[in-house]
Amino acid sequence: MSGALELYFDFMSPFAYLAHNRVCELAKRYERDVIYQPIDLPSAKLAAGNTGPANRDIPVKIDYLMTDIHRWAEKLGLPVTFPASLDSHKMNAGTFYALQKGCAKEYVREAFALGWGLGGDISSDQTLTKLAETMGWDPDHFVAYASAAKELPEYIASNQKAVGKGVFGVPTIIVGDQMWWGNDRLDFVEEFLAQK
Amino acid sequence: MSGALELYFDFMSPFAYLAHNRVCELAKRYERDVIYQPIDLPSAKLAAGNTGPANRDIPVKIDYLMTDIHRWAEKLGLPVTFPASLDSHKMNAGTFYALQKGCAKEYVREAFALGWGLGGDISSDQTLTKLAETMGWDPDHFVAYASAAKELPEYIASNQKAVGKGVFGVPTIIVGDQMWWGNDRLDFVEEFLAQK
Repeated sequence: MSGALELYFDFMSPFAYLAHNRVCELAKRYERDVIYQPIDLPSAKLAAGNTGPANRDIPVKIDYLMTDIHRWAEKLGLPVTFPASLDSHKMNAGTFYALQKGCAKEYVREAFALGWGLGGDISSDQTLTKLAETMGWDPDHFVAYASAAKELPEYIASNQKAVGKGVFGVPTIIVGDQMWWGNDRLDFVEEFLAQK
Repeated sequence: MSGALELYFDFMSPFAYLAHNRVCELAKRYERDVIYQPIDLPSAKLAAGNTGPANRDIPVKIDYLMTDIHRWAEKLGLPVTFPASLDSHKMNAGTFYALQKGCAKEYVREAFALGWGLGGDISSDQTLTKLAETMGWDPDHFVAYASAAKELPEYIASNQKAVGKGVFGVPTIIVGDQMWWGNDRLDFVEEFLAQK
């Protein structure tokens, strides 16, 4: 066993949602750890020099992408609903709370389920409260922690690490010196893990 | 048999190169025609509202994409070399010359082989001459035809059709009211064709 799977993600991303379960399955099958790296996707794009509009601001592209997301969701047996908000900073930052408690995998799964699964407002304290309750945490304590959002040192460090590694989109998986971008590259990740 | 495969492509696109053989195989296996629709990719992106930089102008992204392209090329058993030029208008327009002669499939394969296969300058008359010779055509006649490039009515019509159908990238495959974007969506195309 060598080489953990670094998973760069943002709760605003449907493709990160679609990828998460399989990344966990691959980690389990090939006995690797998952290193959770929540990042601010728009900032990572800008840092890479991608100054273009977001996909949701390109009408024909977002129409197509919604079809594409539903095709993947059907293939994977996952529900999918466009979230009421895509402001993901608090939920992203909350990942570090879960990491401290040793349950990042469960947190990420439940958080994605509330957002892209059920279409909730991922920025609201109400959603964060529900998430804390699902995790069996004190909601006030968790909401206070996650509300630091972009100011949280761990989140800042994760974003800096992403930029340093040339991450320009999510989900991105890094193993050693190999990088893959996209839910649609997990077959390549699996081929790599299988041949090691 | 019903519903041809409309293939929107641009010879500047490595992913269109990577997709072409399999699109032809799918068409053959499921007894569909391929309708070749060469387009000016940058114009299609702009028409869709994608005013952002090209991938090749985003350093970390183009670095990654070159790795990705090589992974696909290895998987598919295809050579790949970055072309000496990405100005594809003449080669795109030349597709209609091939269509008139009933050999678009062979033309597209040979043209991609000279560009993304061998790394040639796809904009040069020298490359177009070589292409004509491979096809058994009069080189001067072909070069004169292709040199109309962006002014060629068939090419203009193909670009307009693409915009009308919401094509914002290549390769894009359209069958009836279904659209798929990307070399990495051919599994979905196959699933669709298999269930019809």
